[in-house]
Amino acid sequence: MKIMILGSDGYIGYPLTLHLLKKGHEVFGVDNYSRRQRVEEVGSNSLTPITTHIGRKGYLKHSYSQSFVDQVDISLGKDSPGYIRHFLKEFKPEAIVHLAEQPSAPWSMISVNEARATQIENIIGTLDLLWAIRQECPTTHLVKLGTMGEYGTPNCDIPEGKIPEVCLGNKPESLATPVPCPMSGLLFPRTPGSFYHLTKVHDTFNIEFCCRIWGLRSTDIMQGVLYGVKVTGEEGLEQITRFDYDQYFGTAINRFCAQALINHPLTIYGKGEQTRGYLPLKDSIQCLTISIENPPEQGTYRTLNQFEDTYSINELAHLVQNAAYDLGMTSERGPIPNPRIEAEEHYYNPHHQTLFDLGYKPTVNTAKEIKNLLLDLEPFSNRINEKVIMPTTKWR
Amino acid sequence: MKIMILGSDGYIGYPLTLHLLKKGHEVFGVDNYSRRQRVEEVGSNSLTPITTHIGRKGYLKHSYSQSFVDQVDISLGKDSPGYIRHFLKEFKPEAIVHLAEQPSAPWSMISVNEARATQIENIIGTLDLLWAIRQECPTTHLVKLGTMGEYGTPNCDIPEGKIPEVCLGNKPESLATPVPCPMSGLLFPRTPGSFYHLTKVHDTFNIEFCCRIWGLRSTDIMQGVLYGVKVTGEEGLEQITRFDYDQYFGTAINRFCAQALINHPLTIYGKGEQTRGYLPLKDSIQCLTISIENPPEQGTYRTLNQFEDTYSINELAHLVQNAAYDLGMTSERGPIPNPRIEAEEHYYNPHHQTLFDLGYKPTVNTAKEIKNLLLDLEPFSNRINEKVIMPTTKWR
Repeated sequence: MKIMILGSDGYIGYPLTLHLLKKGHEVFGVDNYSRRQRVEEVGSNSLTPITTHIGRKGYLKHSYSQSFVDQVDISLGKDSPGYIRHFLKEFKPEAIVHLAEQPSAPWSMISVNEARATQIENIIGTLDLLWAIRQECPTTHLVKLGTMGEYGTPNCDIPEGKIPEVCLGNKPESLATPVPCPMSGLLFPRTPGSFYHLTKVHDTFNIEFCCRIWGLRSTDIMQGVLYGVKVTGEEGLEQITRFDYDQYFGTAINRFCAQALINHPLTIYGKGEQTRGYLPLKDSIQCLTISIENPPEQGTYRTLNQFEDTYSINELAHLVQNAAYDLGMTSERGPIPNPRIEAEEHYYNPHHQTLFDLGYKPTVNTAKEIKNLLLDLEPFSNRINEKVIMPTTKWR
Repeated sequence: MKIMILGSDGYIGYPLTLHLLKKGHEVFGVDNYSRRQRVEEVGSNSLTPITTHIGRKGYLKHSYSQSFVDQVDISLGKDSPGYIRHFLKEFKPEAIVHLAEQPSAPWSMISVNEARATQIENIIGTLDLLWAIRQECPTTHLVKLGTMGEYGTPNCDIPEGKIPEVCLGNKPESLATPVPCPMSGLLFPRTPGSFYHLTKVHDTFNIEFCCRIWGLRSTDIMQGVLYGVKVTGEEGLEQITRFDYDQYFGTAINRFCAQALINHPLTIYGKGEQTRGYLPLKDSIQCLTISIENPPEQGTYRTLNQFEDTYSINELAHLVQNAAYDLGMTSERGPIPNPRIEAEEHYYNPHHQTLFDLGYKPTVNTAKEIKNLLLDLEPFSNRINEKVIMPTTKWR
């Protein structure tokens, strides 16, 4: 298949590019390298010593001659008029994987400048892309990265995108006889928790609208929190992806593992009973590939909840501590006041059956994955900058 | 009270300014005159011969010395760094009425340029305003104009903003025993019908978030479709508001009345069974004043569904035809293919009790209001440009 990847230099985008190339697909990558720049601006770096974007480009060109990666902003606006339209017209992709958004919740909360940069980049970038698809390749399948965080933590089950036909109980036993829900088929209510999460919700509405009105087709992926660094386990330095551990771009398990490596207390925010869906990076690559290779019908807006299982922060800290102990390290918990505003104890039961039905084989041994991750990172632990770990951006 | 009106030169903003000044409030108006400019750009004009913005400013200064109207973009961004923050700091309003958004659904559907202009102006303008309120006057009550169009036409009752405690039947008899809804308290699902409507949905999410996280307070008004031109019935030329009748900025009843005046067939889109909530301009002014004078508690995000009653397009055409006939005019129906994509026959039962509880006394005689409107407009009917009436912008 001909696949365009927007955000092909990123944490997910680069290993996805390699995986799809290895499977024989033709890949066209697009990135504006804003992630590299922003991580540098907050004083951090990738824990893994990734090659420069020019080095990666050369490696891809050498190893997979048909691939091409360039620096292009996806926006059709003033900054790059019509570039993405031009590339869509030339390459005619069968699928576009859209990972090219500002991905950090805390970064979006720093000040009005970061909030508006996030909302313009994400909302208007996706809007421009939708118009470009309509004009140049309306049958192309748009695979868009959303987040499980769109839903927040409601006091009921979380379906996959839309309200199901029968009443969503919040306990299995709550409804002896299921009652038909009159809101069936409408988008399940979203309760996003940051200016970043808000952009994903608005993308959802913009994309659903374009499928409904223009007949485009899209898979909108409500992804859980990723962790891990290797997909095949055999990545050399030119193949390994970036790994962020700072307060802005690092995510829970990854941050904890970096902390364990330098014997920094694990930064548990508040009570630590916040529960979310998680999955290893390699499962994300597997799931994205399944979505790409199994497109929905023309005109369909499909939502997938993409995660392996749910864990609380306290459970994750426990898993990281155990793995560190097995490897001869010590690792302490360091609970700190929660910089975010979020429920610290809550009901959480999101559904995620569709990907399993499409063939997803999850990595279920999270304890083992975490131990492998510590081993993968250990050679680079001297690269960790301790100063970028503690959260300084507060929600209030 | 000290009240800031954003969009004070507009169809609602100008009569609201006059009404609040007459009631003895102190008003600070802000407008960038984009409505005047855009109506001119689409080749149309206000049916009523409104004075220039300089003329209005002089009139307000002369009649109500404390008022001040100026041209300011509400955005904090590059175009006008910090202006609105500066004015909030100086004026310290107790309420801000935010009417300063691009208000046309068909205009937002013309091309990618109008879609992105609408989404940037509305979403980022409101985002910037929220940050400015947080920084300069966090106890100020934000009265924000949304639209009933956020909800679309779901196959169930439409509550006021949030999902109620018991299951929303779509027929009075559908649930003999009301069942508690597990989604109770979440935002009722939105199904917006244009890039313009999408911006109102995202504003809803951004505002709800800022009330929840920062403790701001806001009334988000899901307003029905307005009609009419006079509020007191005694407006002279310096007091009368603008009146748009073109395909972009004219709304259903207003458009039909302008058409009846020049014996143009009434442009009924599709089957004409599309049903919406409507209210006269004077009711909107009354309701907005009620919201301003009855602010919610600090930290509250309040939603009001603001309309008098629901009517189908066919019912409205019938009312306009009858009123025209009584005044000695003839008026024919001119059904045309629907340029929009929308349900043309549907269930529609939105709730709107809260404003009545707060004291709203609706104008119930719609037939009489329409006849008065035709009489108010008749002296200016030679100003109508027939060329801007027929819809040329299609949803697909």
